[in-house]
Amino acid sequence: MQTTTAASLTRLLKPESVAIVGASANLEQFNGRVVKNLLRHGFGGRVYPVNPKYEEVAGLRCSPSLDALPEAPDVAFITVGRERVADVVRQCAGAGVGAAIIYTGGFSEADEAGAHLEAEIQRIARDGGIRVCGPNTAGVHNFHHNFHLAGLIALDVEEMLPGGIGVVCQSGSIGGALLSRAAQRGIGFSHLISCGNEMDLEVSDYLDYLVDDSRTRAIAVYLEGVRDGEKFKKVLEKALRREKPLVVLKLGEAREGERAALSHTGTLVGEDRVYEALFRKWSVTRVDDLEALFEVAHMFCVSKLPEGDRMGVVTTTGGAGALMADKCGVLGLKVAEVDDALRTRMKEKHPAFGRIENPLDTTIADIHLYSDFLESFLESKCFDVVIPIVGSSAQFKPGMGVEPIVRLKRKNPGVPMLAYFNPHAEDAHRLLAREGIASFQSISGCAHAAAALVRYARVPGRGKEGAPHTVAAPSPSIAERLSAARSLNEAQSLALVRDFGLPVVAHRFCRTEEEARLASRDLRFPLVLKGVSSEIQHKTERGLVKTGLGDEAALEGALAEIAGLRETCELEGYLLQEQVEGGVEFLLGVKRDPQFGPVVTIGLGGPDVELLDDVSMRVTPLTLDDACEMMDELKCKKIFESHRGRGPLDKAAFAEAVCRLGEAAFAHREHIEEMDLNPVFLRERGKGCLVADALIITRNDT
Amino acid sequence: MQTTTAASLTRLLKPESVAIVGASANLEQFNGRVVKNLLRHGFGGRVYPVNPKYEEVAGLRCSPSLDALPEAPDVAFITVGRERVADVVRQCAGAGVGAAIIYTGGFSEADEAGAHLEAEIQRIARDGGIRVCGPNTAGVHNFHHNFHLAGLIALDVEEMLPGGIGVVCQSGSIGGALLSRAAQRGIGFSHLISCGNEMDLEVSDYLDYLVDDSRTRAIAVYLEGVRDGEKFKKVLEKALRREKPLVVLKLGEAREGERAALSHTGTLVGEDRVYEALFRKWSVTRVDDLEALFEVAHMFCVSKLPEGDRMGVVTTTGGAGALMADKCGVLGLKVAEVDDALRTRMKEKHPAFGRIENPLDTTIADIHLYSDFLESFLESKCFDVVIPIVGSSAQFKPGMGVEPIVRLKRKNPGVPMLAYFNPHAEDAHRLLAREGIASFQSISGCAHAAAALVRYARVPGRGKEGAPHTVAAPSPSIAERLSAARSLNEAQSLALVRDFGLPVVAHRFCRTEEEARLASRDLRFPLVLKGVSSEIQHKTERGLVKTGLGDEAALEGALAEIAGLRETCELEGYLLQEQVEGGVEFLLGVKRDPQFGPVVTIGLGGPDVELLDDVSMRVTPLTLDDACEMMDELKCKKIFESHRGRGPLDKAAFAEAVCRLGEAAFAHREHIEEMDLNPVFLRERGKGCLVADALIITRNDT
Repeated sequence: MQTTTAASLTRLLKPESVAIVGASANLEQFNGRVVKNLLRHGFGGRVYPVNPKYEEVAGLRCSPSLDALPEAPDVAFITVGRERVADVVRQCAGAGVGAAIIYTGGFSEADEAGAHLEAEIQRIARDGGIRVCGPNTAGVHNFHHNFHLAGLIALDVEEMLPGGIGVVCQSGSIGGALLSRAAQRGIGFSHLISCGNEMDLEVSDYLDYLVDDSRTRAIAVYLEGVRDGEKFKKVLEKALRREKPLVVLKLGEAREGERAALSHTGTLVGEDRVYEALFRKWSVTRVDDLEALFEVAHMFCVSKLPEGDRMGVVTTTGGAGALMADKCGVLGLKVAEVDDALRTRMKEKHPAFGRIENPLDTTIADIHLYSDFLESFLESKCFDVVIPIVGSSAQFKPGMGVEPIVRLKRKNPGVPMLAYFNPHAEDAHRLLAREGIASFQSISGCAHAAAALVRYARVPGRGKEGAPHTVAAPSPSIAERLSAARSLNEAQSLALVRDFGLPVVAHRFCRTEEEARLASRDLRFPLVLKGVSSEIQHKTERGLVKTGLGDEAALEGALAEIAGLRETCELEGYLLQEQVEGGVEFLLGVKRDPQFGPVVTIGLGGPDVELLDDVSMRVTPLTLDDACEMMDELKCKKIFESHRGRGPLDKAAFAEAVCRLGEAAFAHREHIEEMDLNPVFLRERGKGCLVADALIITRNDT
Repeated sequence: MQTTTAASLTRLLKPESVAIVGASANLEQFNGRVVKNLLRHGFGGRVYPVNPKYEEVAGLRCSPSLDALPEAPDVAFITVGRERVADVVRQCAGAGVGAAIIYTGGFSEADEAGAHLEAEIQRIARDGGIRVCGPNTAGVHNFHHNFHLAGLIALDVEEMLPGGIGVVCQSGSIGGALLSRAAQRGIGFSHLISCGNEMDLEVSDYLDYLVDDSRTRAIAVYLEGVRDGEKFKKVLEKALRREKPLVVLKLGEAREGERAALSHTGTLVGEDRVYEALFRKWSVTRVDDLEALFEVAHMFCVSKLPEGDRMGVVTTTGGAGALMADKCGVLGLKVAEVDDALRTRMKEKHPAFGRIENPLDTTIADIHLYSDFLESFLESKCFDVVIPIVGSSAQFKPGMGVEPIVRLKRKNPGVPMLAYFNPHAEDAHRLLAREGIASFQSISGCAHAAAALVRYARVPGRGKEGAPHTVAAPSPSIAERLSAARSLNEAQSLALVRDFGLPVVAHRFCRTEEEARLASRDLRFPLVLKGVSSEIQHKTERGLVKTGLGDEAALEGALAEIAGLRETCELEGYLLQEQVEGGVEFLLGVKRDPQFGPVVTIGLGGPDVELLDDVSMRVTPLTLDDACEMMDELKCKKIFESHRGRGPLDKAAFAEAVCRLGEAAFAHREHIEEMDLNPVFLRERGKGCLVADALIITRNDT
């Protein structure tokens, strides 16, 4: 009988009974320490060491085998030599064990023989109906259950702090480092799960469990790559709907990381831009160091979501206040002005005080002043997030600069406060963590966190239950055309794009010169004439594109020139188009990612502009909000505004086109490998956009 | 008698005798604590508290006034009320005090009255020949002299650690935070100087002193802005020649920071891009948080400079190794391959070990293995920088993972080692700092530091004594043309650009249509015709530019069209140019910065591309190396390579043009406000570049 993944994960992560297979009576060795630590941190369930060599381990009776146990334990932690793991998993299955944690390494991450063994174990586990964490995992922790079954040296820390962050790591040592660093800051976790080689349970399974877990308020992930793209997309979407923020440190920004990951856990990290596109779509916050991973996750655990992006800064130290304002500005946050009401009220209370502005530098000279201004900022409605900064007193008199923050948080829980301490100030950080207030070690870290909080707060899909996308069914006639062709020429491609519902420039496909002459009468000069060939990608360079044909004579000349090229390239005919006047050239593309399906790209169009690499990507299907965000992500986004006499561009029309293309790509994902629409002319507001060139590559020939 | 700034700074920073004017017998108050702390940290000179209210301060005889002292002290630390400061400075001057540190605040940073007082004090000091640090300074420290005369609460730390970093801060609290954070890491300073309002001595003076100081091996600066641009440029250049690396945290990336600085110390932060241009030119490393400011400066103090950019990573933890490789890759560093010699040697010694590659993940299981591989990496000649990474053992057994690093550093001092510890590991960090080894708290911080080290090591001008630039004298005839014109039209501008030595497209300026017809016979069709007007900036939008004129008839039509516009705009004539075929459009500009003089900008040209904001800037005068670096800094730098059938662009010609323009701009900086060359057509290698349009704005009308 197959149980659900959720049920298995519950037995794995919240067990009543645990067997440690391969336990050692030597508590200095890892195999002994794992038992000792499980007991030390107060696990309340039954613990069964299993090893024929010993009578007793850590004061517990040690059984010779799993069969000899008085019950089928929820979890078996396996730490025997790699050759014996398969046998133990078979015994687990036979005994009705809920889940196995294979700590043992030396499998697919190590060598061929290991990969072979892993495949065998995988088969045994699947046949026996037992779920597996690992192999090569560092183990699992459920902090609210006092359950710590893991091999991290970090377990030697005295206290395991329960908290709201659920941590999933595709590297045991990163998990250990996070535990160590967060503990130092007084920040606790709900779970810490080391994925190992993901022979069975994979990162998406653990995430799914944590999204459902009520103790977990935000999730921190160290990610190298995922095995099942669709499953990952689903869990990201679910996390967003349930308002459980995900914070991710993702490997693979550069080829160098990709190579290292491959040899580290055998994970394929995938294309980084596609992950970026996924993260943006489902509002996953990406960070780039360990500190930020738990600092930002902790902020999501304890902070309300702000209503806007207006930052208020109250500081005892001018320099740090200025730097904070600067960094907020760089990240696009508003360092809002103090309004008249607030200024008047503060002036009345403190007539001797100088300029009242934001950032507000009170200096530490009078801590009551600091406290008073902080309170005024929190209550003023001028700011959506307030950043209190404390200088030296945070280190030497933590009670002094930090006490007002704690007191005012209780009084004004509605406005998120993100604190920054200028000096080294561990006590102050711990004090705030205990009170459920986010604090940060660096100015840049604090400003980035604020930006992440603001971004997450304004996600349109957040918290919306129900299906977020209505996805069109594939059209049978389009599917037929796509599957018939090995490859599509430009005329066929343009026709398809029009049938996807995108506006396409007026055009005619003509097999002969004579047809072209006739067709020109239905079109408006000036015209563009292109030689059509499925073989040739860069037609302009080959002289196959003639633009600005103002009259019949010009058309005649162009026809003659292209006809002259027939000897050197195989032409299928001519494409005659009306020339688009005005508008800015964009590119609009789709590429099928092997893991995540069709991904839409937008960017500026034209031959040289591709070198600028200024594009934005999204995984399909797309919403209009996605399309608008994409435009906003372009570095050149100012181009959508009025410029040099032309009005603002028709963003709505472009968003519509982007969505329609994404929808078609998603509906026909079985058939389409790649689409490249370039240029797409985007014109002034109200005038729409026009696709002038298209190339579709089908999957039939791959 | 006026002494040199250097001599005054020596008295200020390495005094034999110190007076504290306004000292208090209450050692809990700031005015008392400053005396207590000076003594506590072992200052060996004579200390004179001055205050008519007390007989004794901190066990020392307290004098009623400066006149009553047995000698003229080197330094007077002034901490009396703001109204009394002017008097005290007058007394200092009278008594022959070397330098005054005005701790008192409430001057130009506070209000009008304060600014007025500050101006008065400035006059008194100048007339009296006494140099001033401050007002509104937090004080100064010389760690190797046991001299700590400052008001930082951070002075309450037990131990003041002498080291190689000279710190200059335009914010007292940032200085305090740096001291606190670096002390925690076991990293020491040579000096810590708080600039205050820079009424007299300014940031460049302190930097100049530190560049000359033999105990200072690298300089860390918190910068808001500078008062004297030329002085700052000189000291940056001197620092580079003397190989004294500068690391800067600069405020003002965003408008928000600028605004905050203005109200914090009244500093004008200047245009951030211009600072960026300065920093790049003189290889100043810019960082963006406090941790990086002292971590990177410390690295420069203790590390040899690498010979290349090949990183080797040896790690006890796979995840962190992969992340490090990734981040190095993102920053353009090479994560070099292990070569055959190294692989063979390692395989022989450790035949059971798996894949030998970079990053090399030894796991902590066998620390001898770790040590052995680290040694092999250091000795292999495969790597220019080696990054040792230690996991959990760095926290729980610092001796274990860290000892090999210390031992091998002694054995192989030639290869820079930058260590990273994955967990929280303060003891390990302190251990390495004590041994003169750079270590980092974050992966990203470590990789950025490595990139900074590599960048600094390959600076061409570094360590070269002597004048770095031969600057052309201004040409009298050019100067005359520039100073005669209120503004220059396009034809005049192009002619000047040609006289600067840049290649300009063949052209003729013609006053009438008839002249244009005649001129066309000297030029090669196709031609471009432009209506010339000093008033109109965007000529294309106004219909004043006609391109692709293939023959005389086309020219005639274009002349008629433009002539028709004479009613609506004032034309000075026509510019007839040969049309440039092929090539990529760039822009090449100069703008005079009020502080730093002419700044050259390059970027892609064309009307829409300016929105991409992909430019690189340098302060003049320029070297060819500068020009090449600028091209390399463009995000679109791939455009210089072969693309879509065209060959690589003529970078050498462009670099030449950039330099010539920079030279002319520098030589004629008194006359030129702005130059805008756009487009400049850059063609394939060997074919050079051609300026097709130019606009020069002179300073005569400003």
